[in-house]
Amino acid sequence: MNSRRIDPSLRRLILASLFLAGVPGLVQAGEYQDDLKARRARAMAELDPGTAMVLWSADAKLYSRDVNYEYRQDSNLLYLTGITQEDTILVLMPGAATKKEVLFVQAANPQREHRNGHILTKAEATALSGIETVYFFSDFEPFLTSMFNARNYGLRRGVSTTEWDVFFAEVRAGRGKLALLLGPRPAPSRKLPEVYEWANRFRERFFGVAVIDSLSIVEGLRQIKTPYEQKVLERSVQISAEGHRAGMRAAAPGKFEYEVEAAIEQVYLTNGAMSWGYPSIVGSGPNSTILHYEASSRKMEAGDLLLVDAAASYQGLTGDITRTTPASGAYSPTQKDIYRLVLAAQEAGMGAARVGNKTADVEKASEEVIKAGLLKLGLITDDKGEQFRTWYTHGICHWIGMDVHDVGDYDRPLAAGMAFVVEPGLYIRPQALDNLPDTPENQVFKTKVGPAVQKYQNIGVRVEDSFLLTDAGLKRLSTDAPRTIEEVEAWMKGTTREKR
Amino acid sequence: MNSRRIDPSLRRLILASLFLAGVPGLVQAGEYQDDLKARRARAMAELDPGTAMVLWSADAKLYSRDVNYEYRQDSNLLYLTGITQEDTILVLMPGAATKKEVLFVQAANPQREHRNGHILTKAEATALSGIETVYFFSDFEPFLTSMFNARNYGLRRGVSTTEWDVFFAEVRAGRGKLALLLGPRPAPSRKLPEVYEWANRFRERFFGVAVIDSLSIVEGLRQIKTPYEQKVLERSVQISAEGHRAGMRAAAPGKFEYEVEAAIEQVYLTNGAMSWGYPSIVGSGPNSTILHYEASSRKMEAGDLLLVDAAASYQGLTGDITRTTPASGAYSPTQKDIYRLVLAAQEAGMGAARVGNKTADVEKASEEVIKAGLLKLGLITDDKGEQFRTWYTHGICHWIGMDVHDVGDYDRPLAAGMAFVVEPGLYIRPQALDNLPDTPENQVFKTKVGPAVQKYQNIGVRVEDSFLLTDAGLKRLSTDAPRTIEEVEAWMKGTTREKR
Repeated sequence: MNSRRIDPSLRRLILASLFLAGVPGLVQAGEYQDDLKARRARAMAELDPGTAMVLWSADAKLYSRDVNYEYRQDSNLLYLTGITQEDTILVLMPGAATKKEVLFVQAANPQREHRNGHILTKAEATALSGIETVYFFSDFEPFLTSMFNARNYGLRRGVSTTEWDVFFAEVRAGRGKLALLLGPRPAPSRKLPEVYEWANRFRERFFGVAVIDSLSIVEGLRQIKTPYEQKVLERSVQISAEGHRAGMRAAAPGKFEYEVEAAIEQVYLTNGAMSWGYPSIVGSGPNSTILHYEASSRKMEAGDLLLVDAAASYQGLTGDITRTTPASGAYSPTQKDIYRLVLAAQEAGMGAARVGNKTADVEKASEEVIKAGLLKLGLITDDKGEQFRTWYTHGICHWIGMDVHDVGDYDRPLAAGMAFVVEPGLYIRPQALDNLPDTPENQVFKTKVGPAVQKYQNIGVRVEDSFLLTDAGLKRLSTDAPRTIEEVEAWMKGTTREKR
Repeated sequence: MNSRRIDPSLRRLILASLFLAGVPGLVQAGEYQDDLKARRARAMAELDPGTAMVLWSADAKLYSRDVNYEYRQDSNLLYLTGITQEDTILVLMPGAATKKEVLFVQAANPQREHRNGHILTKAEATALSGIETVYFFSDFEPFLTSMFNARNYGLRRGVSTTEWDVFFAEVRAGRGKLALLLGPRPAPSRKLPEVYEWANRFRERFFGVAVIDSLSIVEGLRQIKTPYEQKVLERSVQISAEGHRAGMRAAAPGKFEYEVEAAIEQVYLTNGAMSWGYPSIVGSGPNSTILHYEASSRKMEAGDLLLVDAAASYQGLTGDITRTTPASGAYSPTQKDIYRLVLAAQEAGMGAARVGNKTADVEKASEEVIKAGLLKLGLITDDKGEQFRTWYTHGICHWIGMDVHDVGDYDRPLAAGMAFVVEPGLYIRPQALDNLPDTPENQVFKTKVGPAVQKYQNIGVRVEDSFLLTDAGLKRLSTDAPRTIEEVEAWMKGTTREKR
């Protein structure tokens, strides 16, 4: 590789153009662009006419020295523009007559394009995003300054328009607002995130303009997947499920965890999913009890469980799947005990995942099954309190979408179009007992559950599926990944025919 | 994946432990640790006795929302400690009697370890790094403050030692120095990098202590590979070469670039190289003329060239290999013209890569061949000036090692132990003519070379090998990747037997 700074901003850019033309059997030409337009319209419907909402692209992240990681666009900007290129800014102004949407993109640069590939022209940015008004990145600050000075930016270019008359009137009336996606306020002693620093510089210049946080608007929209998103998410999860199937077949005593990871991730790329949604977790034996074990460096042994938590990011959408399978192809009786309990908890959670319920109801349904089951297995002595948390250490619901832990309000009742996982897990780590405070109650607990902990030690099982809630009920998107004991053992024996 | 912040800091940590035990046929048990000790001793030999040199681990880099990229340790800290964990600090103090090396690591944290895996104990940190004195991360600031106050840190813990007497005497005599790896000074209008901010906070507190930049010391050491590094680099390049072979076999008209990438990267993982050294470049047809094309999204066509620039990072060392191969298995006559010229230029560069020469000599030898060849092909009209730069757009030598563009002084004469690439490339992009300034001379140039540019348009060829300079001469580490026209065509036909 020749020695210039690497700037891998174009990988996902090109992907968006696939979607411009459509993908046979999945999306029509222009469908993505129509969806993007509708998303922006919905965002603007939440804003007052004197508001300009500004979103920035993500910065490139340094891997080491002059090499960057593969570029990842900011999810919110991607959600509203489809643009996967660095140095992109979106301004939404519902108070404008027609130029409500203004996009700022990099200018052409022949040297840079020879190094890193094509930079979108303004026309291409319009075609990809559906945004008609496109300026160059360097125009952003003069533009925004003009707007909040209530002066027509077009005049600078010899063009007089009345585009922004309503917006200007609002600003002059003291109702101007700059809406930024600020997010959580950092603690006073912490460093300010860049968007806060920028907001403060703005406040030092524009005294009469309110700075407001519009993060919840965009996050609220993202919580309900559009029909377009639903289709693409389903395809994304299918690719991930296919990866899991390949991973199961690649596992065997004597092989390394990273060989399973290689088999899974090759499936992603081969299917045009250019990245994982999160680094793959491939943990065998005792590593199955580590929630986010990512070393993938252990050699599997006969009798090991292998916990694989992995999903692709396809066209900006990611599911989330975990399977826990026997390295040698058959679960042991103790592994089956834990596995069946986790699966029963998942089924109970799925049963509660209905329109109108909340994720807390899903959590509760699953917990009840876990408590009863752990008591029966002798791993707890009391199914009323919090003892079960010793082995059942995390929540089981989170939203999925553009981010694997997608944005969304957990107090909002479940509704059609929401996508989430149900992922109970039990991790029988002997260390968990050592870490309990040394109280008389805990002494008794340790003594009583000791034999069962000994019996089930180092068994970690998590079963996670990706779901879409529809008006017709709960749809499991990850059905292609073998899930029950019988399905898994049959698949690993090779008796299940490859479906597609 | 359950919803806690992902912190993939352990992937490479575990790898270092492989090296503690040794790798059969490659390194002995303890060999890595002995090498690390020798590196630190060499660094300290360059420092005055009143100096404390401080190095920090890299920060985790955010991918999106609560997911981080896979963690990449700071190369310099890794070079001196072998520790791949976040929140690690090394202090080197040649003026200490025995505790010259002090390592600060994360404290144990059962919750975090259940989420993300094992955190090194102090004993493990000692075993991996060979550093006897290990404190917790939270002790770093009190320790450093004590040192530059010339007060024994041990006293805080009820231990009186004379470890640091010489250092303290130097500090009291006004010869105390804090050595940081500062790197290039940012322009006055630019934001200060964190290490500069930290240095300034230190200067606001310790008026009599000089802050000095010790980057060149560590970089100077890294420029000459140790025998241990040479072996591991050679293995790393072999894995990359094996990836290229798999990639060549995966290429075919009708297949996508990303399928080739999948085949290559699976070879990395399968061989225990857990990451690329840089994002893979897989560019077919016109994309072969983009130096760092990383989209990998085009469908290959018959007649395409496919430029693949890819290498694994194995145990912290990365080579760099580029091959340009015909998608359909046979080069066209025009492709052969360009390929042969690039290969001849590489051979000329290799011939000049001798002990005592500089990389400028390698560049020059290659350029002479390129100029003569381009003139002969009708792509330039004058082989004296800079016309050849229209098609030959980058330098051909850079150091390799822990970073793909490794650190090192280009004015330092070539010496045994240096590792570098020779990578000439020609990129016949019609756009290159459009971008020339519109002068009468350029008009003439365009007219004269027009037919040849037409003939060779969209052909991009780069040939890059990784080399180690030894006392016995130049050693090509990437011999396993087919390189000549004959070797490539034979390999793609499948007539070459897989070597290993």
